[in-house]
Amino acid sequence: MKDKIKAGIIGATGMVGQYFITLLANHPWFRITHVAASERSAGKTFKQAVEGRWHMDTDIPKSAENLVVADALDITKVKHSCSLVFSAINLDRQATMELENRYASAGIVVVSNNSAHRATKDVPVLIPEINHQHLDIIRAQRANNEFNTGCVVVKPNCSIQSYMTPVHAIKNAGYKIRNMIVSTLQAISGKGYPGHSCFDLIDNILPLPGEEIKSEIEPMKIFGSVAGNVIQPDNSLKISANCNRVPVIHGHTACVHMNFEGKKPTIEQIIEIWKNFTSLPQELHLPFAPKTPIIYRHETGRPQPRFDRDTDKGMAVTVGRLRECNVFDYKFTGLHHNIIRGAAGGAILIAELLKAKGFLPS
Amino acid sequence: MKDKIKAGIIGATGMVGQYFITLLANHPWFRITHVAASERSAGKTFKQAVEGRWHMDTDIPKSAENLVVADALDITKVKHSCSLVFSAINLDRQATMELENRYASAGIVVVSNNSAHRATKDVPVLIPEINHQHLDIIRAQRANNEFNTGCVVVKPNCSIQSYMTPVHAIKNAGYKIRNMIVSTLQAISGKGYPGHSCFDLIDNILPLPGEEIKSEIEPMKIFGSVAGNVIQPDNSLKISANCNRVPVIHGHTACVHMNFEGKKPTIEQIIEIWKNFTSLPQELHLPFAPKTPIIYRHETGRPQPRFDRDTDKGMAVTVGRLRECNVFDYKFTGLHHNIIRGAAGGAILIAELLKAKGFLPS
Amino acid sequence: MKDKIKAGIIGATGMVGQYFITLLANHPWFRITHVAASERSAGKTFKQAVEGRWHMDTDIPKSAENLVVADALDITKVKHSCSLVFSAINLDRQATMELENRYASAGIVVVSNNSAHRATKDVPVLIPEINHQHLDIIRAQRANNEFNTGCVVVKPNCSIQSYMTPVHAIKNAGYKIRNMIVSTLQAISGKGYPGHSCFDLIDNILPLPGEEIKSEIEPMKIFGSVAGNVIQPDNSLKISANCNRVPVIHGHTACVHMNFEGKKPTIEQIIEIWKNFTSLPQELHLPFAPKTPIIYRHETGRPQPRFDRDTDKGMAVTVGRLRECNVFDYKFTGLHHNIIRGAAGGAILIAELLKAKGFLPS
Amino acid sequence: MKDKIKAGIIGATGMVGQYFITLLANHPWFRITHVAASERSAGKTFKQAVEGRWHMDTDIPKSAENLVVADALDITKVKHSCSLVFSAINLDRQATMELENRYASAGIVVVSNNSAHRATKDVPVLIPEINHQHLDIIRAQRANNEFNTGCVVVKPNCSIQSYMTPVHAIKNAGYKIRNMIVSTLQAISGKGYPGHSCFDLIDNILPLPGEEIKSEIEPMKIFGSVAGNVIQPDNSLKISANCNRVPVIHGHTACVHMNFEGKKPTIEQIIEIWKNFTSLPQELHLPFAPKTPIIYRHETGRPQPRFDRDTDKGMAVTVGRLRECNVFDYKFTGLHHNIIRGAAGGAILIAELLKAKGFLPS
Repeated sequence: MKDKIKAGIIGATGMVGQYFITLLANHPWFRITHVAASERSAGKTFKQAVEGRWHMDTDIPKSAENLVVADALDITKVKHSCSLVFSAINLDRQATMELENRYASAGIVVVSNNSAHRATKDVPVLIPEINHQHLDIIRAQRANNEFNTGCVVVKPNCSIQSYMTPVHAIKNAGYKIRNMIVSTLQAISGKGYPGHSCFDLIDNILPLPGEEIKSEIEPMKIFGSVAGNVIQPDNSLKISANCNRVPVIHGHTACVHMNFEGKKPTIEQIIEIWKNFTSLPQELHLPFAPKTPIIYRHETGRPQPRFDRDTDKGMAVTVGRLRECNVFDYKFTGLHHNIIRGAAGGAILIAELLKAKGFLPS
Repeated sequence: MKDKIKAGIIGATGMVGQYFITLLANHPWFRITHVAASERSAGKTFKQAVEGRWHMDTDIPKSAENLVVADALDITKVKHSCSLVFSAINLDRQATMELENRYASAGIVVVSNNSAHRATKDVPVLIPEINHQHLDIIRAQRANNEFNTGCVVVKPNCSIQSYMTPVHAIKNAGYKIRNMIVSTLQAISGKGYPGHSCFDLIDNILPLPGEEIKSEIEPMKIFGSVAGNVIQPDNSLKISANCNRVPVIHGHTACVHMNFEGKKPTIEQIIEIWKNFTSLPQELHLPFAPKTPIIYRHETGRPQPRFDRDTDKGMAVTVGRLRECNVFDYKFTGLHHNIIRGAAGGAILIAELLKAKGFLPS
Repeated sequence: MKDKIKAGIIGATGMVGQYFITLLANHPWFRITHVAASERSAGKTFKQAVEGRWHMDTDIPKSAENLVVADALDITKVKHSCSLVFSAINLDRQATMELENRYASAGIVVVSNNSAHRATKDVPVLIPEINHQHLDIIRAQRANNEFNTGCVVVKPNCSIQSYMTPVHAIKNAGYKIRNMIVSTLQAISGKGYPGHSCFDLIDNILPLPGEEIKSEIEPMKIFGSVAGNVIQPDNSLKISANCNRVPVIHGHTACVHMNFEGKKPTIEQIIEIWKNFTSLPQELHLPFAPKTPIIYRHETGRPQPRFDRDTDKGMAVTVGRLRECNVFDYKFTGLHHNIIRGAAGGAILIAELLKAKGFLPS
Repeated sequence: MKDKIKAGIIGATGMVGQYFITLLANHPWFRITHVAASERSAGKTFKQAVEGRWHMDTDIPKSAENLVVADALDITKVKHSCSLVFSAINLDRQATMELENRYASAGIVVVSNNSAHRATKDVPVLIPEINHQHLDIIRAQRANNEFNTGCVVVKPNCSIQSYMTPVHAIKNAGYKIRNMIVSTLQAISGKGYPGHSCFDLIDNILPLPGEEIKSEIEPMKIFGSVAGNVIQPDNSLKISANCNRVPVIHGHTACVHMNFEGKKPTIEQIIEIWKNFTSLPQELHLPFAPKTPIIYRHETGRPQPRFDRDTDKGMAVTVGRLRECNVFDYKFTGLHHNIIRGAAGGAILIAELLKAKGFLPS
């Protein structure tokens, strides 16, 4: 226990923060030693700070109850107390970037759930099964920012994670996808807590314009490559998204139409590619790595959020309904747990990869 | 009152049947004189037949309470008692076609909510604002089938009606749409009653494979033209659909991506086209015709099912979010009330058009 | 139109405020000439002030769009511009009482949706069908507070209105109810907007401790009587409530067990009492008075919120399931539309009564 | 594995049946060797029989996939193949009783989820923590029916299990409860699959008259005692229930008002009684026995179905909100998982008790 890496959670009292607390409770490598939130919560025990707003269906882990919540902006508190922080703070973009940089400057590895740094050219936006090699940019990032042992790595928006790994697997098998039109049916937990009013989402759905922009830009960077001291986006694939909020608690669904350039695989080949796909997190046996990152279901009625989101502890992506498309080559439906795979769990997997790659003290 | 056209409802006890009963209660032209359902309900009063399964939020119209339910299969009961029937019966495809033909053979004008006859080459699939001229096929249909005063006209599947009129308006203005990719988020009332188990649609959504096929084929016929004694589909437009059921009571939403061939209109031009679009039902002042068939909303968060489905008594289509598409030319979202515009109300509008065009006794 | 009474709405931008705007749009006696809200909205047109947060399923009435929103705290703006205000402002209890008194001091009749003044001994808590004679206290209230033409009248909490009128009808027929145990299943709109997070109310229900206290105290005052310059509560009836929030948009349901003292009516007698009950609002033909204040439904499955809440434009109370109780004498279920009958509509009915009784300029 | 007791599931393809299959997959004492259902499923493998209607969020256990489904009515198939069956068949009352008796006559111990036998005087209705001593009736039951090694034991209706154990704990501590008024807010899974139409339970709730009768009668028998060859109900406690269905997937909530006779405990004493309550299943360390049968939560907002139903693998009852009642002595809210504790899990616990008490071969 004492040998575990000391980890902090910035924004620990929000919904994603609470998932970090819960998912890390018995982590084999990391131990939560520090929790921070807004000034309002600072000085309280974690239990006090979340009283009346603990949203998990298990109780607060005993080990976290009595941690004293620090002010997230007060960097002095965290120095020396941990070498890794997970950031899920809710500030504006500029303030988030500056805060995460300050933690990195203090020598801390920052794995962020925030969107602030996703466009920063030397910050990798990581889905470990896809672009683990983007961690190569960290050397440049450290040089650019005069970080020493610290760095910033971010996870992408949850709206894209129902199809990014399946699409990567196909690309990785040597096929070229040129166009994708994607429709998302996103769960309410994606907006955190309190998020949407229930007045808006009982007997109703909502459009999500802001998610569409992220859905169309972030994949280019993830599919890009390290070129010198920046990550060069791959602009060969074009994505258009329409994003919708539906009355589902957890689990984002994406209906994807895709068009190939050059030779295209058959339906059977794609299913085979998906079934057999594994990547570095699987090879390294990272604790949060799903055994099979992509689960293909043959039933015509799947995937469905309530029945598929928890597959492999919420870390697998479930796909189904691969079929010919009247306009493009194929269409399929993908689904992932937006708060586990798409947020807290995905960030933990990134931290595990950082540890395995030597970016964290052993 | 006595001069109103006598109308029957076949399948009067189901959800769409109940909407016919309710919507026709004070119709200026039609008067319900006949209700029919399965053998199980035959002989009961309508009130008895729907006891414990009346699904409207207004009570059974007094005028319908004491109508004696006939066996829908017993054609002798309806002869002479009405010159028009609305068909919403729940039989298999072959049996439905035969039954509707038997009514037509008996001299009755059949306006059907069923899918059975949609592929029949001399049966028009009508959205009155789009293809009212397809009624010209009735002469051929009567000749082909030896119908005298009877005929069969059907309304299309509800899944397509959130975008068909908007797309028609653009085509009608002289532009050519070549490809569409459509994602639907469909309401539960589309499956009738009891329809889906609530176990499947609380905290969940479902794929709807069967709706996708209808969504891709029916538009071709509606956009087609009468050629001799068949309706020739227009195959110049290709549609690919992914269809989903969401926990919304009424109101189908469609997210549409469209690609033009040749010159394309600007966003402003399209909005102008939609705002100004009217058609024959408006010119004829048909009672169920929406004053403005297409309502464009400029708010970023609209349309939304609960707030837009009832526009113009549920007969208008609401569109919004017209914007550029990364892959195709434009994307937008459309919405209509699937049980009113998309089913019972749409069928009543067809009957009104038939009356105005002289297919019903005046 | 010019002769209508000029009315203001304080707290016009919130959910109840929007209902006032919508319900009063074509009122035969009142005309909205003044809208006020928090400082944040002041100076904007009403349309601007509610942009992106208009929650009605009809559009903003044209007559309200361009009204300039005043600061609710700035009493100078309202003086002379209206003789009646509906208050639905969201302040703390003390501030609300002071504000409402300031309006009354300025000569304005205040009909309030707020709970602040419900315990004030000379302020009537009114359900017009039950305790219209409590308006007699206004003379004392004016004397006590040095109000001139102004006064304050409030409507009770929505949680009790599914059974208060039915219980009053029975009491009014000469029977004495001694004990009631009530369970409420309350709709989400009762908490306004944004109200509850949808994370809390999809696949879930919530307890409502705060509503229970109001449910147990307010009825005593409503059933009380004017005694000198105070309203003396009737403590002969004891109520115990358990209150719950359920995922229903509008419509509070109450399951009531009641015990009589002395002679008790039969089930048939109670139903007869309910069916025949009318009161002063019906006799005066007040515009918002439901024709039949209490609707009894004999079906075993009714009332149900989605099907009964809109009865008589949302102003009637629907009861059903009257049956013997194993422990008390009888049990029954009541339902009303919490935002219409229970809030904005109920307040409008109070204002109509005030007008009919001469408390407003004719 | 081979030494485990062979168990069958009658009605294995329905929702409760699927829970039995899932919960028993790795049971330390029992092994599913037989599955039976209606004639329609007979002859298929279990996997085939539930294709398209498997409702669990985990896959079919591998060990069950290839079991061939027997016709439940064909008793010859089960003889010798198992010594224990769980019955969750969906037949009418008379047919269910006869079928369960036939299994018992064949020497099989039947643990039933059905209501059919609950009123049979020599059949125990068991909540193991409450009335385990009712198993003493089995000797009489066997004599009365000429059962040899077989017998029938049933579990009570799920509607009462949110409060029966808490009430028993208080009675067991020496206090006498005379009257209870109970309001239930029951989850949809209580009606099985497909159960309710989602048209009835989105933005709506339903009354459940049939559940009320069960709720008022079954507790008397459970609190009764074995007297000669019948179970004599305890009629000293009177219960009145109003039962409601709410849009919650799993987890029945009960709001309970209770009145004592004679000395009554304080709130603190009741909480202490609940916290310390254990019974025979805990002493015997039965595999499905919750460690703490009654969990008291002090938060004002608990229990809530989505957050409390899964406590202790769904086998604990969660209570909260114990407070004084205006009319009776106290009120509180209880919650349990209706399909685990209230159905399949509760039945498994009964079977474990039967094994521990020697009614099953060791």
